[in-house]
Amino acid sequence: MSTHVSKVSKLLLLPGDGIGIEIMTEAEKLLQFINANTELNLELSSALVGGAAYDQTGTPLPEETLSLAKQADAVLLGAVGGPKWESLDISVRPEKALLRLRSELELFANLRPAIVSPELASASSLKAELVSDLDILIIRELTGGIYFGHPRGVFEEGGEKVGINTYRYSESEIRRIAHVAFKTAMTRGRQLCSVDKANVLEVTELWRDVFNQVAEEYPEVTLTHMYVDNAAMQLVRQPKQFDVVVTGNMFGDILSDIAAMLTGSIGMLPSASLDINRKGMYEPVHGSAPDIAGQNKANPLAMLLSVALMFKHSLQQPKYAELIEKAVAMTLTQGFRTADLSRQDWVGTAEMGDQVIGNLAK
Amino acid sequence: MSTHVSKVSKLLLLPGDGIGIEIMTEAEKLLQFINANTELNLELSSALVGGAAYDQTGTPLPEETLSLAKQADAVLLGAVGGPKWESLDISVRPEKALLRLRSELELFANLRPAIVSPELASASSLKAELVSDLDILIIRELTGGIYFGHPRGVFEEGGEKVGINTYRYSESEIRRIAHVAFKTAMTRGRQLCSVDKANVLEVTELWRDVFNQVAEEYPEVTLTHMYVDNAAMQLVRQPKQFDVVVTGNMFGDILSDIAAMLTGSIGMLPSASLDINRKGMYEPVHGSAPDIAGQNKANPLAMLLSVALMFKHSLQQPKYAELIEKAVAMTLTQGFRTADLSRQDWVGTAEMGDQVIGNLAK
Ligand SMILES: CC(C)[C@H](C(=O)O)[C@@H](O)C(=O)O
Ligand SMILES: CC(C)[C@H](C(=O)O)[C@@H](O)C(=O)O
Repeated sequence: MSTHVSKVSKLLLLPGDGIGIEIMTEAEKLLQFINANTELNLELSSALVGGAAYDQTGTPLPEETLSLAKQADAVLLGAVGGPKWESLDISVRPEKALLRLRSELELFANLRPAIVSPELASASSLKAELVSDLDILIIRELTGGIYFGHPRGVFEEGGEKVGINTYRYSESEIRRIAHVAFKTAMTRGRQLCSVDKANVLEVTELWRDVFNQVAEEYPEVTLTHMYVDNAAMQLVRQPKQFDVVVTGNMFGDILSDIAAMLTGSIGMLPSASLDINRKGMYEPVHGSAPDIAGQNKANPLAMLLSVALMFKHSLQQPKYAELIEKAVAMTLTQGFRTADLSRQDWVGTAEMGDQVIGNLAK
Repeated sequence: MSTHVSKVSKLLLLPGDGIGIEIMTEAEKLLQFINANTELNLELSSALVGGAAYDQTGTPLPEETLSLAKQADAVLLGAVGGPKWESLDISVRPEKALLRLRSELELFANLRPAIVSPELASASSLKAELVSDLDILIIRELTGGIYFGHPRGVFEEGGEKVGINTYRYSESEIRRIAHVAFKTAMTRGRQLCSVDKANVLEVTELWRDVFNQVAEEYPEVTLTHMYVDNAAMQLVRQPKQFDVVVTGNMFGDILSDIAAMLTGSIGMLPSASLDINRKGMYEPVHGSAPDIAGQNKANPLAMLLSVALMFKHSLQQPKYAELIEKAVAMTLTQGFRTADLSRQDWVGTAEMGDQVIGNLAK
């Protein structure tokens, strides 16, 4: 591996809950290996988040964690949540930490690639030919929409309870994510599909209008619009018709999970959440998987590929991103599989991490 | 076919746009055949709706149509919408007619079965074994939620436009759909999965609480809860894990379309939208398909099966529902396929309708 002289990069590791802990151990091994073998100067620290933080401090996002995250150049997150904390009030649930981190760090652009290498296509519930070589990217607005709109809550009205949430986007919020979407499409197939429900929801009529305006600045990108119900169907019917899909927070939550599941290997999918300066938080698309936590069964590849995305976007070291991605691909070609991808002959979390690092060394 | 002595049943036929017109012709043929051969007394009338109504009267839902719909015992709807009307203001788009009909007739319970007979399983984009013999039912709340909440619109705020919609449910709205869901589950596999986003949206926390309360009245039904992103994934991963799925208006729009697409035969799926007295509107799950409209290519089976649902729910003649369903099944067993289900040797819309009626006659 070649070396670079670089400034210090501060990385904050937030393992969180469930398998988040095990997969973060593999990420740390990988980062320490890179530190030891290059002139990159990665300064690692870690902190509590999610249920683990709630158990120790009474809040899922301690102020110390938030302030470390703000100082960091990039944050790596494992996963948060689990049945243990599901009956807590919504205000202190592990998920709240995630939402607050996204919001406080202004990570409005969430990139979720869904990629299927031909050798893994048979893991999908779809017919293999429909997903083999799939390479689509879902861009989800992450700090607005119904996740954050006010008023919200449960109120008394006319002698009964009424629950309310507010789906809200301003022009400037829409414009900001539109530029990320068009710029990203320019680096790929230049096909951008914006998903809304403009036949019913006025907020997404505004979304569509702003996208049409911004499109004029990117004449090389083909912009199409699709209603969310149709987009969900089309993802299942013929996913390869898409290149980049962009949508709001709630629809993005749903569509990116469908896209992930199409690949049949949700344990392999990384994500990046970026602010306007490309500072970011990087995490697997999968959750904390409490059912297999602590059993050395989790697939660490989504976490390691999240580290790759970090090198690409926040540390501006695309070369390291590529090296990690190649090492992962090589490991798969060598036949190594974790339990989620193989019924027999599977390797554990730690061994999978070791194999990737071994291939990186080559 | 046996005969019954019955009171007059007033049926309103709303063909609408695109293939809605052709498939309604088949429904009408079927209903006239039943009228001629039984003592059922079906009084058919028809009216304008959707783009067709807009073109002739300037509104997608003329007052006359609405008042006929209110007087009818059941409404049959073909489909509405098309590119011709897509640039109209949201307030006069064809879709608005549908939303207003649902709301004015208080059709709060939308039932969307997704069924796959083994002989059609290969039409799915999923592996055939995952969908063969699938029989799930999505129940969607249809007159509340973000589709109808206020405030809504695009406003000026701080020098820019802001789009707003309101996701709102009252306890009584939730309780009403919960009872339909539990009662329906009692007639099937007694497994009810309620879908929400209770880890983020307060309105769906209330939804979950009310479902848990109502569950106490139905001890024989197993109630589970699932977040919407996970539900979308699970539908793609292993759809047969579900029996009845119940959710709000927006999530139901998305999930029922996924469920429909899983079957690979969206041209075959009917739906029922019911009020508290089981008066209802019946329509195919598919849309107006402008690309094949007027070409005798549309599959009329979703429309004919919607007629069957009407006999079952609104006319309380389950026997006729069964007879129609059997005639459709026989037609498929005989090998007849419309273009959506077969690349070669397909029959036209009218011929498919004739075959079903022919089988009904037997
Ligand atoms: C855990 C939850 C709050 C979160 C979300 O809804 O955004 C998750 O589903 C995700 O997609 O990252
Ligand atoms: C046409 C549209 C308004 C409608 C909806 O969103 O409800 C349709 O998608 C449906 O599912 O019936």
